[in-house]
Amino acid sequence: MRGAVLYAPGDVRVEQRPDPAIIEPTDAIIRLSATCICGSDLWPYRGVEALDGPAPMGHEYVGVVEEVGGQVTTIRPGQFVVGSFWATDNTCELCRAGYQSACVHRVLMGTLGTQAELARVPLADGTLVVTPDMPDADLIPSLLAASDVLGTGWFGAVSADVGPGKTVAVVGDGAVGLCGVLAAKQLGAERIIAMSRHEPRQRLAREFGATDIVTERGDDGVAKIKELAGGLGAHSVIEAVGTQESMLQAIRSTRPGGHVGFVGLAHDVALPGDELFFSLVHLHGGPAPVRQYLPQLIDLIWDREIDPGKVFDLTLPLEQAADAYRAMDERRAIKALLTP
Amino acid sequence: MRGAVLYAPGDVRVEQRPDPAIIEPTDAIIRLSATCICGSDLWPYRGVEALDGPAPMGHEYVGVVEEVGGQVTTIRPGQFVVGSFWATDNTCELCRAGYQSACVHRVLMGTLGTQAELARVPLADGTLVVTPDMPDADLIPSLLAASDVLGTGWFGAVSADVGPGKTVAVVGDGAVGLCGVLAAKQLGAERIIAMSRHEPRQRLAREFGATDIVTERGDDGVAKIKELAGGLGAHSVIEAVGTQESMLQAIRSTRPGGHVGFVGLAHDVALPGDELFFSLVHLHGGPAPVRQYLPQLIDLIWDREIDPGKVFDLTLPLEQAADAYRAMDERRAIKALLTP
Repeated sequence: MRGAVLYAPGDVRVEQRPDPAIIEPTDAIIRLSATCICGSDLWPYRGVEALDGPAPMGHEYVGVVEEVGGQVTTIRPGQFVVGSFWATDNTCELCRAGYQSACVHRVLMGTLGTQAELARVPLADGTLVVTPDMPDADLIPSLLAASDVLGTGWFGAVSADVGPGKTVAVVGDGAVGLCGVLAAKQLGAERIIAMSRHEPRQRLAREFGATDIVTERGDDGVAKIKELAGGLGAHSVIEAVGTQESMLQAIRSTRPGGHVGFVGLAHDVALPGDELFFSLVHLHGGPAPVRQYLPQLIDLIWDREIDPGKVFDLTLPLEQAADAYRAMDERRAIKALLTP
Repeated sequence: MRGAVLYAPGDVRVEQRPDPAIIEPTDAIIRLSATCICGSDLWPYRGVEALDGPAPMGHEYVGVVEEVGGQVTTIRPGQFVVGSFWATDNTCELCRAGYQSACVHRVLMGTLGTQAELARVPLADGTLVVTPDMPDADLIPSLLAASDVLGTGWFGAVSADVGPGKTVAVVGDGAVGLCGVLAAKQLGAERIIAMSRHEPRQRLAREFGATDIVTERGDDGVAKIKELAGGLGAHSVIEAVGTQESMLQAIRSTRPGGHVGFVGLAHDVALPGDELFFSLVHLHGGPAPVRQYLPQLIDLIWDREIDPGKVFDLTLPLEQAADAYRAMDERRAIKALLTP
């Protein structure tokens, strides 16, 4: 099969890779209908995360089941499925508590590489969620978004305790931040402030439910959020970047007793304990337990109540993955969908 | 009146200070029945916090109202009252949300100095809670504990989401940590693990409801907590120290999806963002909104259902405050009560 492999920072190649095969009796093999590039794929692409030899890329996926192992009981060949970037048993104590991303048997899909024609999905019964039927083609981007960015933005909003009557600020205008806006809208937020200085992203934020746009950053951005939120700060802030600046901006924009949901993969962040102490905010986040939200998100997409697939503003054949990485790296695209 | 003043690290003197007077029409003057020394008073006493000239000390207090300002409506001379270390209006948006320690009009009692015969209490209507009657003498230490350490330990337990069926670990065996144990018991925790290597404190922890004692610290302490908590870590961890080591110990002892309630005043703490991210814990804490809990805590004490006054294992006349500071500094006393 064809698949994307990162050889060195900036050097993504689509090449012939061995077809995946059932290894564990709980595995499934799926044929991808669509796959995509994640903001987190840019960390090794940019050389910020070290690379240990050529690495198959990608961890987002939707597709049709080709084959299942002997112990798979609920997933059958021919079904259309969506899964998260963690393969999980969905039965252990942590999964049952809603933290599938900490499943005691979890496997990171990124190590398997879903920017490809086929993928092996471990723990298929726990990991995969079957759609009600074969989806119309126009639903596929949204179902693919559910696999990571939508589920991650949703977890950010839940972690930030978004709800009716609340003022929510979103730090980060990437696909996750924009999906955080969408999630905040669905969860009933009264006011949603998107922090963005890029016109196309501002437009999509408004389409997803943002009521206000703040272009300022740092202290000015914090001051602006406070001004919009009764002088006290937002009730809920979704952090979707993962830098020191964005984390502090999120904490400082939140009122005492408010909640920060942080889902940007943290790089070189050290939170000052005294500031966190006196801020009196709640802090929760990490790798999103997307599996928990998938059934609900698939329903919303299936009923055409949400259209998170709009985050894909570039679609290219898998063979042109290198162009897609470049477009995202240069912020010419919010998120690139690849068709195998 | 007589009052304690810190002149330099290690140099506490009880001296003649001017009697406090009503300054704002919302003030009350109280005559202290008892006061005490807080673990946080040891930071400037030890020279860890800088001192800007001689400072009146103390922020914990119970006593009888002597006089009230013209705008005080609910508090009357002759009443026995308990207040928190923040004077607060109890009516602003943050107070109504339960975050009195972030009240927009708050005044830190520590700047006024309650290790004295008399104290001025700003915002008396919002700050002070009247007991049902004049208390029996044996209730006074417990009511004084409610003024800070009990309310702070309670906030730690609430922030750590303590509840029925949960395994709770408490990092720190000072008065706040011990009150955290008591709070966890009251809030219905199934298992309460106190981390302590001091025999008298271990004994009090057991009396307050601890089911297990862990003497190990650092990585060994974390391993022990995990072992006691099903291999996954505690559901709830109360952090009551405020150092880098204790914060990391708390985070690492908590299972993914679990809660850390941190109430130890943070000193030189920098939390690594990536570790926090992948831990998937909830983090909440800060200066406790003790005022929120005072009515409930006073009821529990009045009905003799809890006896947090046991944290006072040394009682001295106010005049001997210097001896009391020394005893706490040298960990010969858990907490010292001073009788004016």
